[in-house]
Amino acid sequence: MLFTTRSTARLLRVSSSTMATQWTQRCFASGMADAVGTLEGQHFMSIDQLSKTELQGLLDVAHHYKAQYATQTANTPRPLAGHSMSMIFQKRSTRTRVSSETGMALLGGHALFLGPSDVQLGVNESMRDTANVLARFNSLILARVFGHADVTELAKYSAVPVINALSDRHHPLQTLADLMTLQQHFGKDKLRGKTVAWVGDGNNVLHDLMLGSALLGMNVNIATPTGYEPDAQILETTRGFAAAEGMKVQTTTVAAEAVKDAHVVVTDTWVSMGQEEEYAKRVAEFDGYQVNKALISHASPDAVFLHCLPRHPEEVDDEVFYSERSLVFPEAENRMWTVMAVMAAQLGKVE
Amino acid sequence: MLFTTRSTARLLRVSSSTMATQWTQRCFASGMADAVGTLEGQHFMSIDQLSKTELQGLLDVAHHYKAQYATQTANTPRPLAGHSMSMIFQKRSTRTRVSSETGMALLGGHALFLGPSDVQLGVNESMRDTANVLARFNSLILARVFGHADVTELAKYSAVPVINALSDRHHPLQTLADLMTLQQHFGKDKLRGKTVAWVGDGNNVLHDLMLGSALLGMNVNIATPTGYEPDAQILETTRGFAAAEGMKVQTTTVAAEAVKDAHVVVTDTWVSMGQEEEYAKRVAEFDGYQVNKALISHASPDAVFLHCLPRHPEEVDDEVFYSERSLVFPEAENRMWTVMAVMAAQLGKVE
Amino acid sequence: MLFTTRSTARLLRVSSSTMATQWTQRCFASGMADAVGTLEGQHFMSIDQLSKTELQGLLDVAHHYKAQYATQTANTPRPLAGHSMSMIFQKRSTRTRVSSETGMALLGGHALFLGPSDVQLGVNESMRDTANVLARFNSLILARVFGHADVTELAKYSAVPVINALSDRHHPLQTLADLMTLQQHFGKDKLRGKTVAWVGDGNNVLHDLMLGSALLGMNVNIATPTGYEPDAQILETTRGFAAAEGMKVQTTTVAAEAVKDAHVVVTDTWVSMGQEEEYAKRVAEFDGYQVNKALISHASPDAVFLHCLPRHPEEVDDEVFYSERSLVFPEAENRMWTVMAVMAAQLGKVE
Repeated sequence: MLFTTRSTARLLRVSSSTMATQWTQRCFASGMADAVGTLEGQHFMSIDQLSKTELQGLLDVAHHYKAQYATQTANTPRPLAGHSMSMIFQKRSTRTRVSSETGMALLGGHALFLGPSDVQLGVNESMRDTANVLARFNSLILARVFGHADVTELAKYSAVPVINALSDRHHPLQTLADLMTLQQHFGKDKLRGKTVAWVGDGNNVLHDLMLGSALLGMNVNIATPTGYEPDAQILETTRGFAAAEGMKVQTTTVAAEAVKDAHVVVTDTWVSMGQEEEYAKRVAEFDGYQVNKALISHASPDAVFLHCLPRHPEEVDDEVFYSERSLVFPEAENRMWTVMAVMAAQLGKVE
Repeated sequence: MLFTTRSTARLLRVSSSTMATQWTQRCFASGMADAVGTLEGQHFMSIDQLSKTELQGLLDVAHHYKAQYATQTANTPRPLAGHSMSMIFQKRSTRTRVSSETGMALLGGHALFLGPSDVQLGVNESMRDTANVLARFNSLILARVFGHADVTELAKYSAVPVINALSDRHHPLQTLADLMTLQQHFGKDKLRGKTVAWVGDGNNVLHDLMLGSALLGMNVNIATPTGYEPDAQILETTRGFAAAEGMKVQTTTVAAEAVKDAHVVVTDTWVSMGQEEEYAKRVAEFDGYQVNKALISHASPDAVFLHCLPRHPEEVDDEVFYSERSLVFPEAENRMWTVMAVMAAQLGKVE
Repeated sequence: MLFTTRSTARLLRVSSSTMATQWTQRCFASGMADAVGTLEGQHFMSIDQLSKTELQGLLDVAHHYKAQYATQTANTPRPLAGHSMSMIFQKRSTRTRVSSETGMALLGGHALFLGPSDVQLGVNESMRDTANVLARFNSLILARVFGHADVTELAKYSAVPVINALSDRHHPLQTLADLMTLQQHFGKDKLRGKTVAWVGDGNNVLHDLMLGSALLGMNVNIATPTGYEPDAQILETTRGFAAAEGMKVQTTTVAAEAVKDAHVVVTDTWVSMGQEEEYAKRVAEFDGYQVNKALISHASPDAVFLHCLPRHPEEVDDEVFYSERSLVFPEAENRMWTVMAVMAAQLGKVE
């Protein structure tokens, strides 16, 4: 069962009169602020908790921030001044950590990095107590965990919004960055009807990418080896989103079939952190799944390549990875603009 | 012999003309600033270095900050802008680290977290040299150490104020948070004559709590198993403080005796960091010391419960810990407002 | 072959029109800004990449910052507001980390500390990809590495300026602090013709110190045991710099010969991080190299002592280390003012 946060979480420390004032201001402000207004005080656990309007709203805010903060003048707004965020990392991460901490600094707030040796979730202190305590100090909690239940447990007890910065089931921040990158490349209103092809492990990154792509009206092709399929329930939700947009979701075990005529080819590591022991087994089972010139020749001539990084040569060769069609570095950068949008929306600070 | 800092430490980098100006401003300012004015440039090692006026002054500043920063607007003052603090942790700590780092950010300054793998006090560099160097970069040094001598050694050589953020002998920051929490709950002027009961290990947390409680005119009851008594000298100092206020300090080995008619029941872990090998022995020797409904039934009907966290079920059961009378989460939050008061007072920035 | 950065690195995210405006402003500004204007967008790898004008310009900016930020008022300028810097540490370091992070905070920017357990350069992700990614998030990258090739590899692929914060070949930030300290002590225009004596290992710290000392018109005497000589090519470059100023570079294996009539005596640890296994061997081979009263009696009566810290008793005894002639703590402090000058110059923010 998917965790749903809509009705439970509220920013308890924001007084209702403050919220009323902010709401009034927002009503006269841009549609962007209206679109994400419903996210104020909400946790951010997975893409399927978002409406299409909310998803597009977050992307609009991210595009706006990218333009606004590009020049880095002293006069750029600091809407999160006085706010702070605890960032709990059970797993090491360069991109998630640097994008979130830097993005928070750009918005004027302060992010605290708590690594595996600083906080061991549930070991020295229960998740409930940790959530209760951190919510007393900080306006937001971001957590990168192994098991998805850990981040939903944190959210259950936290009086402030929690951000899932990767669990074994979902990686919604990555999907926001991916969709923003595609909108930059193809044009904001040109994604509808395009096809996204995933070639690789049916993992957490795929889960939110297929949800988000379907929600924005794209077709989704998925190639995974037998035994590496995505979660059946999330696939079902994705099919529902796609059907509502008149799009299709297709699965196969043949990489070239998924890539055929696709506009976007995406892969990820075959061996995630914690799976190192299975390395040889996995590399053998993903034989034929490397994204290279031969495979990508089946795609649309204008197809682009995405990868959430870090990248290993087995899943994509240098020729594709460092090619003109590879958008992996803008995609990494967009992790920052999109998490900024999420944080500001959760705190009701989009204006 | 207790370390005394009064006559030695001075904020060397503040010019005397600046100090004179600040002093003049303070003379016309609130009594709160006057009360803590004597703490400027001083180390903060233990509660018994404070006068009653200074202790109440710090609590007043903490209450003031809690009200002032609750709304988090961009216009809240940043009195520590341009200031920074090195935080040295020999022992991991969620609460101390997050409360201090977040509190420093709220005041406009910058805190640097130096974990056990970043700085090893006295290992690669002498305490003297470490203190000399950090005092060149930062306005404050906060240290969480194993042996109390380590933090007094740092203070001895530091030209800037040092904060003891827990040693094996003292934990004065915790006491400030505890007393602030009790003032919030009972009323600022209602602590006099109330009774605080400690049930558990006669440790660092008890040392400063009994000193602070007596200084504010509360009775102190202490139950510890034989062999786990608090330090005799600190107990003697506490008796002196209590006598001056017309209050009593009573010790026992029977938990129910200490709790009888108490208004505040406090405990802490029986097995601190570094004592894990003694776990089974300690749990056996603390038999009968768990704070639960049966034990707390001996207390005053309006009694409240405190615990500095992290909490383990052996010393307090869920029924008490998560009850209405448990103030443990406000207590944790008050770690932030009180350390902010200490930092601002040491830098002469309370206005 | 030394790495040269002049023609390759550019601050890609600064638009050319912005750069033009900044340039115009600078042309009417102080000579200090002009002197370091050529460093905008450049990597900072070693002292020999600097012209004499640039080196003196950086020192001028550092002196200026020390005066400007000494009072820590809320009105001090924050020229790096909105900017951030990733700091990658393969090796632990108190001084480099605290000076850089605090200096960045003083300038209004944000520094992110990435320790050995946060980022493992080249292990989980190639240097190329790491550089490409971090340059998307941050305005600067600072790296403390083992092999010099690691930091030049980062610089090769980074679109933003990289700072070498110590490699096995160069330590230019330390040299800036040393020269600033000597200018403070002797007077900015009084270094010319003075003699710097190095007694110890012919290491990275010596490399940049001898380059910088020669560039500013000082004589350089070097005593190292046989087998511990500095790099031949860097020594050759140093001789060229000295000759251009009419000064001399002399090498010997006899400590007293190098110290004779010197105005500055410098040493460093005999056993750097990673060389612990060679401890006994090295201590034996450096017999007679301890800087103590007997050795320093050969120097000029007004000679001063420098050491980059951390210090061990074998290379310098307490009598010299804690004497009036020892400038080691101001030298440590100047690590902050000088790295601030480097960061501001690289970002074109010296005004």
